Amino acid sequence: MISLLIKNAWLLTMQGEACGFVEKGAVAVDKDKIISVGKTEELENKWQAEKVIDATGKVVLPGLIDAHIHTGMALYRGVAQDMNNWLQKGVGPFFNGITDEEISIGSMLNVLEGIKAGTTTFGDYDYPMARIVNNHYQAGVRCHVASMVNELPSNLHHLRVGEIYPLDQTIGKRKLKEAIELLDKWHRKGNGRITCALGPQGADMVSKELLLEMRKLAKTYGVKVHIHVAQGERETDQMIKRYGMRTVEYLNSIGYLDEDLMAVHLTDATKEEVELLAKSGVSMIHCPGSIGLIDGIVPPVIEYMEAGGKVGLGSDQAPGNNCNNMFNEMKSAAIFNKIKKADPTVMPAEKALRLATIEGAKAIGLEKEVGSLEVGKKADMIIVNMQEPGLSPVILKPVNNIVANLVYSARGHEVETSIIDGEIIMENRWIRSVDEQEVIQKAQRAANSLSERIVKRIQSVNN
Amino acid sequence: MISLLIKNAWLLTMQGEACGFVEKGAVAVDKDKIISVGKTEELENKWQAEKVIDATGKVVLPGLIDAHIHTGMALYRGVAQDMNNWLQKGVGPFFNGITDEEISIGSMLNVLEGIKAGTTTFGDYDYPMARIVNNHYQAGVRCHVASMVNELPSNLHHLRVGEIYPLDQTIGKRKLKEAIELLDKWHRKGNGRITCALGPQGADMVSKELLLEMRKLAKTYGVKVHIHVAQGERETDQMIKRYGMRTVEYLNSIGYLDEDLMAVHLTDATKEEVELLAKSGVSMIHCPGSIGLIDGIVPPVIEYMEAGGKVGLGSDQAPGNNCNNMFNEMKSAAIFNKIKKADPTVMPAEKALRLATIEGAKAIGLEKEVGSLEVGKKADMIIVNMQEPGLSPVILKPVNNIVANLVYSARGHEVETSIIDGEIIMENRWIRSVDEQEVIQKAQRAANSLSERIVKRIQSVNN
Repeated sequence: MISLLIKNAWLLTMQGEACGFVEKGAVAVDKDKIISVGKTEELENKWQAEKVIDATGKVVLPGLIDAHIHTGMALYRGVAQDMNNWLQKGVGPFFNGITDEEISIGSMLNVLEGIKAGTTTFGDYDYPMARIVNNHYQAGVRCHVASMVNELPSNLHHLRVGEIYPLDQTIGKRKLKEAIELLDKWHRKGNGRITCALGPQGADMVSKELLLEMRKLAKTYGVKVHIHVAQGERETDQMIKRYGMRTVEYLNSIGYLDEDLMAVHLTDATKEEVELLAKSGVSMIHCPGSIGLIDGIVPPVIEYMEAGGKVGLGSDQAPGNNCNNMFNEMKSAAIFNKIKKADPTVMPAEKALRLATIEGAKAIGLEKEVGSLEVGKKADMIIVNMQEPGLSPVILKPVNNIVANLVYSARGHEVETSIIDGEIIMENRWIRSVDEQEVIQKAQRAANSLSERIVKRIQSVNN
Repeated sequence: MISLLIKNAWLLTMQGEACGFVEKGAVAVDKDKIISVGKTEELENKWQAEKVIDATGKVVLPGLIDAHIHTGMALYRGVAQDMNNWLQKGVGPFFNGITDEEISIGSMLNVLEGIKAGTTTFGDYDYPMARIVNNHYQAGVRCHVASMVNELPSNLHHLRVGEIYPLDQTIGKRKLKEAIELLDKWHRKGNGRITCALGPQGADMVSKELLLEMRKLAKTYGVKVHIHVAQGERETDQMIKRYGMRTVEYLNSIGYLDEDLMAVHLTDATKEEVELLAKSGVSMIHCPGSIGLIDGIVPPVIEYMEAGGKVGLGSDQAPGNNCNNMFNEMKSAAIFNKIKKADPTVMPAEKALRLATIEGAKAIGLEKEVGSLEVGKKADMIIVNMQEPGLSPVILKPVNNIVANLVYSARGHEVETSIIDGEIIMENRWIRSVDEQEVIQKAQRAANSLSERIVKRIQSVNN
């Protein structure tokens, strides 16, 4: 008796070069693993399961991978957009005013938002991760977490634009210690659901010594280095002033470019930089929604893919995206790039879907465990109901419209059921592991308190 | 005793220059009209209502206006994208193979998709509208419909690219007759819910004589002319070959540019053309989702607004968008333009929301009836539940995040209740007027039959 059989589905296994479509497909799961993928007829005859899900009229595909998200910023969703100087003027007051407790409360909102929109793996990169990671553990999701490390004093928002940031080694040491504690406590825990990475916030925000120490630690633990790279003018300006080099050149000069590096954004990376990174085996994490909204820019992801580099997608942070939904990222990746290149053929739907599944898994180093429906992999998958006005009808011939409609029309609420590590985390839109309304209400109370505190602070500054 | 009181809402009345926010707001409705808008305290004391909706934790705003949609193409959603020659190679086989009955069945899918995503007014521009309009009537939505008129023979897809289309006057006469019958039968019917326009498909697709005759008829009936303008290379090439002029110059030369004209797309309109159109009082209907996906282009809507022109938003057709959801159009309008201009400050969220409500109403000539919550206007409004992980928390100070989150994070399924012409058409996601699952199943059966027919046709051509 195996634990779960899903049958009669339109399967997108994401095996092979495209999306691995199977009509009337089935997936057999035992405990946390996929033990068989194929036609319903065959699997139904072969396996007896404790639970059988009839997925007639539904699509089953690997759970989506959000390779870069700051869940700690969810509590101030939507307070900063349509503006210049997003970081300093927009999110600054909230970023500087929020408590660790509030960060943790807000973070759970993002986890639920993700689950309800098909995310099964969260590449969470934030601080204090020691608290945040408990939300992932409790919700039952897979995560790849890094405790963000910088050496920035907290009063940084008083700096003039263009002034070089002071770096404070005592801050770096404390945050590095926390990052190591996270690794020791959580890496490969929860049946392997939780994995860790080292997370320097940017080459401009930590000293060279600390960057090198973190790389050494990453090699010792066998984990990735997750870092923002080439985020734009502010960063480049700091790097030139401090080191006389742009970020990629600098990282190369200190031997940082290899396949354990995840480079997030590459907003203003040049063609040469992209080629160097891709050739070096570095992964690019592309966050189209966030960079489009905050900067009005489409990072060079097409060039990165053409150069043979590994690419994953991320939803980044709630203030300045303003959602954390991989259906939004897939669609944005596809259409923003068509607009950038004035060419509707670039980034077709199936490529976008691959970035959110199997390619994303490769980009974060979890391709042996997730990203496709394949025997031996972890049972992370979602069931999407196509019996919605916006996703129907389903046409299989002479063209198959399923992937196009998932990428260009689905919005996330069509994800009915989510299975992570073989456990049903959400069934028929009901999240089993966490009380959704309680999380929302708690977040609202925390936001009210944060909001009042910031209003008072502004008043006291003005008086 | 009035018919309906909605109370305790976050109101976006869309009155004034911005979004007209009211905290703890209420709207009183009697029959089809809004009779009072204000604070809950005041309205609650003043009115006794047959039905009271407590909208605590919810936003109430005017129903969204989809100023340009071809609902007749919904049955082949998602069959054509990521390609060049979208019209001829992509949708061609379906467009030419579908029956009137199938068009009508598919159309209802789009109506339901729209209702469930907050659309209350459908600017439907398709053929045969005589059949399609029954869906709008039955579903209880507001619509502004045009029976699309062209003089194109049905075997047009055999033309070589660049070859001038033949125009067939007998076709034009027949379709014009149908357009007039539609006006006579439906204009201002259903308590004024149904209004009509005249709909030549494009200046390249009907003769000058027919264009002029339609304009004359529009003046006689007091209705708009709804037409595709400057759709891109194909159209411009035809216009230059036929008349030696680009479309806008041609329309100007025949006296077509005035405030009764709705010009859809303007994909490749020049700055001078945009200024001429805006100055002439012509409305631009901007379809960012569709043109972004099909062409990789962002039409000059910023320039149109800067020139003082009226602008509405449209979702266009299901194959090549691939959704008909005004939340998608608002978000796309905002972010695509930021990308085009490399400037995050252009098209802020509140402007996008205005385009889908009050500005859209002006663009289609229904601003006296809909587009804002204002005493004397029709009661067309939606209730959006903000108690969703992706829309919470709600912050009112020091910045209000409601509009930003509606535009950048909401996806449509958060619309809980829809009121049109004072009637509750959808309540708690359940559509009262039409059986949603029956529509979906019927559309699937029709799509199966269409699909089989097209496969056979392709086989017979190949044999």
